[in-house]
Amino acid sequence: MKDTPIFLRACRREETEYTPVWIMRQAGRFLKEYRALRRRYDFLTLCKTPDLATQVTLMPIERLGVDAAIIFADILLPLEPMGIDLEFSKGEGPVIHNSPSTRPEVEALRRIEAEEDLSFVMEAIKAVCRELKGRIPLIGFSGAPFTLASYLLEGGGTKNFIKTKSLMYQDPSCWHLLMEKLSEVIISYLNAQVRAGAGAVQVFDSWAGALSPQDYREFVLPHSQKVFQELSPDVPRIHFATGTSGILELMQEVGGDVIGIDWRIDLGEAWERLGYNVGIQGNLDPVTLFGPQERIERAVGEILEKAKGRPGHIFNLGHGVLPKTPEANVITMVEAVHRLSKR
Amino acid sequence: MKDTPIFLRACRREETEYTPVWIMRQAGRFLKEYRALRRRYDFLTLCKTPDLATQVTLMPIERLGVDAAIIFADILLPLEPMGIDLEFSKGEGPVIHNSPSTRPEVEALRRIEAEEDLSFVMEAIKAVCRELKGRIPLIGFSGAPFTLASYLLEGGGTKNFIKTKSLMYQDPSCWHLLMEKLSEVIISYLNAQVRAGAGAVQVFDSWAGALSPQDYREFVLPHSQKVFQELSPDVPRIHFATGTSGILELMQEVGGDVIGIDWRIDLGEAWERLGYNVGIQGNLDPVTLFGPQERIERAVGEILEKAKGRPGHIFNLGHGVLPKTPEANVITMVEAVHRLSKR
Repeated sequence: MKDTPIFLRACRREETEYTPVWIMRQAGRFLKEYRALRRRYDFLTLCKTPDLATQVTLMPIERLGVDAAIIFADILLPLEPMGIDLEFSKGEGPVIHNSPSTRPEVEALRRIEAEEDLSFVMEAIKAVCRELKGRIPLIGFSGAPFTLASYLLEGGGTKNFIKTKSLMYQDPSCWHLLMEKLSEVIISYLNAQVRAGAGAVQVFDSWAGALSPQDYREFVLPHSQKVFQELSPDVPRIHFATGTSGILELMQEVGGDVIGIDWRIDLGEAWERLGYNVGIQGNLDPVTLFGPQERIERAVGEILEKAKGRPGHIFNLGHGVLPKTPEANVITMVEAVHRLSKR
Repeated sequence: MKDTPIFLRACRREETEYTPVWIMRQAGRFLKEYRALRRRYDFLTLCKTPDLATQVTLMPIERLGVDAAIIFADILLPLEPMGIDLEFSKGEGPVIHNSPSTRPEVEALRRIEAEEDLSFVMEAIKAVCRELKGRIPLIGFSGAPFTLASYLLEGGGTKNFIKTKSLMYQDPSCWHLLMEKLSEVIISYLNAQVRAGAGAVQVFDSWAGALSPQDYREFVLPHSQKVFQELSPDVPRIHFATGTSGILELMQEVGGDVIGIDWRIDLGEAWERLGYNVGIQGNLDPVTLFGPQERIERAVGEILEKAKGRPGHIFNLGHGVLPKTPEANVITMVEAVHRLSKR
């Protein structure tokens, strides 16, 4: 098994020579090379052109020395073939022009065939895998049902999730129908990515931490659980969210070989609560990368110490790398993880 | 002690006939009457005119049937006499035009005499207390050092706290100087409110949940602890923040007779972690009040059940009531708390 990439061995909680590391949004805005490309193409064109998506996915690999690639895509892409009119406006992030708000509108959302409807993602995955030649694995990903539902209902980003939670409370059966439809789409999308060559998948429930534990259990858990049950067991599955200290055990009940946490919880305490028969991913505050290099190294060291070299730790930020992060500091972090974790 | 208002008895963890309730931002935008007044006066004029601030503070008392009043003010008011140019722009919230970013600018921030520099707040407190005649207490409040520092450094609201955390990491001694100055201001401000008649105080560290436990301990805890040590012990002190599941024990180490939590953590679990020699305040998700009345009552009942009728629970939302919340639903909530908690 020495030939299996270190990232995959860590996901399976096997001993590794050092702690593997990758970075959420590593293929994106913080890279100068990416920003140059973005001046020539808009965001959706980059996502939908396999050659370009492949190029962006590979950009950070050599430069940063990370132990996994992640396909360049957006969590909202599967909404388009469902009938949603998606736009990425400058500076404002995603905008949805036809958010469903009634039961007939939810019923009208189309089920998708991921292999056809999102063929550009599958082509990019195949091309990236050809380039990587198995040296490091490619991570596929999707939004989780709740996080996709919240974008869909709010029409974009949100602070208070009023429309999302209002639908839950006022029309639970419509809410559950929407979550069932999204879950089916996600299952189809992720399994197609695995067939195309993704060596691991991550489910981003980025906003699940906005819910009370009770609401998470009632309105989210059964659907996310279905997703994890139906995911191909051939690859490790990472279950990520932020602000999850109040719902950590519920997230584990949902599923995942590795649980991704943010910096708002102590990694040692989180892993103890989860138990050591699951892997853990995280959890440096992305803003640490705006600090001096000594502080970055110290913060990396503290997290590694909390993980105590136990098999199953994958180092990452607690959320995506921020747009203006200095590239040199990201390299410092990756290098520090490898050096300080060497067994 | 039967004459002591029920809210104060609950803060001291004495047995009460029912669970007291008040609502963060109860004197504010969700009230039709308040919005009418806002069409005639801008926000800072309302804050700075004792007659108007008194009127707004009293608005919700009879209508909602709450067990405490809270003085109408803004957590950023103490920044003005420090030399900060504060503006409340329409829709955008607070904007600060001269955020300090260098050590000399932090050194130039003035120390204040709260009784003089914020005399309008003290006058409003005295007027409200005359009206309330001790029937229910008036809560005074201030932002905590970290939350004030973050507004000050970011120049307004923020998502990622990049400027705030960057100062911590890049110039810790300048950060600590700023926190010391803010702590002094806060101590002076809160103790002046108590002398003016406030029967309890709440320290809002609304954004403390954005920090890792390590950063909270290093950059925030010593300063907030100083504030609580210097606060008048004559009145109950409530220590509130959101997203605190990862720093709950550290918040308790800082101080407070009552710890305020949001809905992202189970109240029963939080209280168990804190131990029952401290009170707890919370923790209904404010968005619940957009749902149907049966669901509001059920959610109230679930929280009361988690508190198990233990002395020391004060019912509240987990954060401020949202602008478009229907008034009738707030009344439903208050009434349900009183009815369902009757011993």
